[in-house]
Amino acid sequence: MKHRGILTVLSGFSGSGKGTIMKELLSRRQGYALSVSATTRQPREGEVHGREYFFVSQERFQEMIRQGELLEYAQYVDNYYGTPRSYVLEQLEQGKDVILEIEIQGARKIRQQFPDALLVFVTPPSAQELLRRLSGRGTETEEVIRARMRRAVQESEGMEDYDCILVNDELDACVSQLHSLIRSWHLRTENNGDFIRQMKEELNQLQEIQ
Amino acid sequence: MKHRGILTVLSGFSGSGKGTIMKELLSRRQGYALSVSATTRQPREGEVHGREYFFVSQERFQEMIRQGELLEYAQYVDNYYGTPRSYVLEQLEQGKDVILEIEIQGARKIRQQFPDALLVFVTPPSAQELLRRLSGRGTETEEVIRARMRRAVQESEGMEDYDCILVNDELDACVSQLHSLIRSWHLRTENNGDFIRQMKEELNQLQEIQ
Repeated sequence: MKHRGILTVLSGFSGSGKGTIMKELLSRRQGYALSVSATTRQPREGEVHGREYFFVSQERFQEMIRQGELLEYAQYVDNYYGTPRSYVLEQLEQGKDVILEIEIQGARKIRQQFPDALLVFVTPPSAQELLRRLSGRGTETEEVIRARMRRAVQESEGMEDYDCILVNDELDACVSQLHSLIRSWHLRTENNGDFIRQMKEELNQLQEIQ
Repeated sequence: MKHRGILTVLSGFSGSGKGTIMKELLSRRQGYALSVSATTRQPREGEVHGREYFFVSQERFQEMIRQGELLEYAQYVDNYYGTPRSYVLEQLEQGKDVILEIEIQGARKIRQQFPDALLVFVTPPSAQELLRRLSGRGTETEEVIRARMRRAVQESEGMEDYDCILVNDELDACVSQLHSLIRSWHLRTENNGDFIRQMKEELNQLQEIQ
């Protein structure tokens, strides 16, 4: 039986390496699809419409919001970023596991629309290690590091809203863990309603003809 | 950080192979503990007290029930079978993942006492395949097969009460899936409360001294 794909949301601390984990997972394993976001910002050199982003105008983005074409969206500085609904739904229907890398507000909106989505929060193994990563190679000013730490404290507030906590200590192990986690999520009873119904029907039929 | 073990309940159709899956998992992988049940039945040739079962008298079993020493118990024909609480708790505290092979009523009692337990229902890939396994090598009478099918229909009623559905099509794949599933269950937010609290505290301390 063809299973519907699992929608996974990957959030986590800046500096947790969630972007790298996601790219590694997609390059190593079959069956995944990365959601391509829509954005109002200008394409940078080398970026391709439909690959890095769907580049749209402010007017088009506002229309997408009004028409309910976005699963979630957010504004950073002057630009909008959002997740097109139709692409995600198509991939899930085809049995692909879709991964979204978004922030907590977006994750909450996904949960409302996909109660069975898998919400994963990525974190370094300790706060000390997070600080080390946020400090970069010692080239950042104290002010920049302080701002990043403030943001990390805010980010940590939402950890309990996620289904799972993924500790990124060693990249290879972390990518394998995420893959296992998504495979395991397919076993959840909520994702096997069709199988259970079919099993019960067949059992009843077989009992009658015995 | 030392994690507490996960308590996994394995139920499923008679003929689903759950006993074999459990034994294979324990023989292939480290970190698991099998719960040893208490029973009032007589030991059979070769059975060792504390290995296959804790063999106890009717009086002692009744006392265990009264004293709350059992996580769950059930009666089959004239004999009682139950899961000693203290052994399971010790293993979990030591970080071992404990597996119980019990029926639906027992699984429900475990859920009440361990909301974070992992409840897994094992099933063959189809009702036809279940019937084939229940029919044995053609040596069973029609009456026996009918009784087994009736029982399977009853067993199927409880499937939705489990967290996950594990399809036993090919033994090796199935054992790997169960192992991945239990490893993944460790990532659940509910099982990482200590880690999250510690992370938040450390982040706040680091922010203050920055």
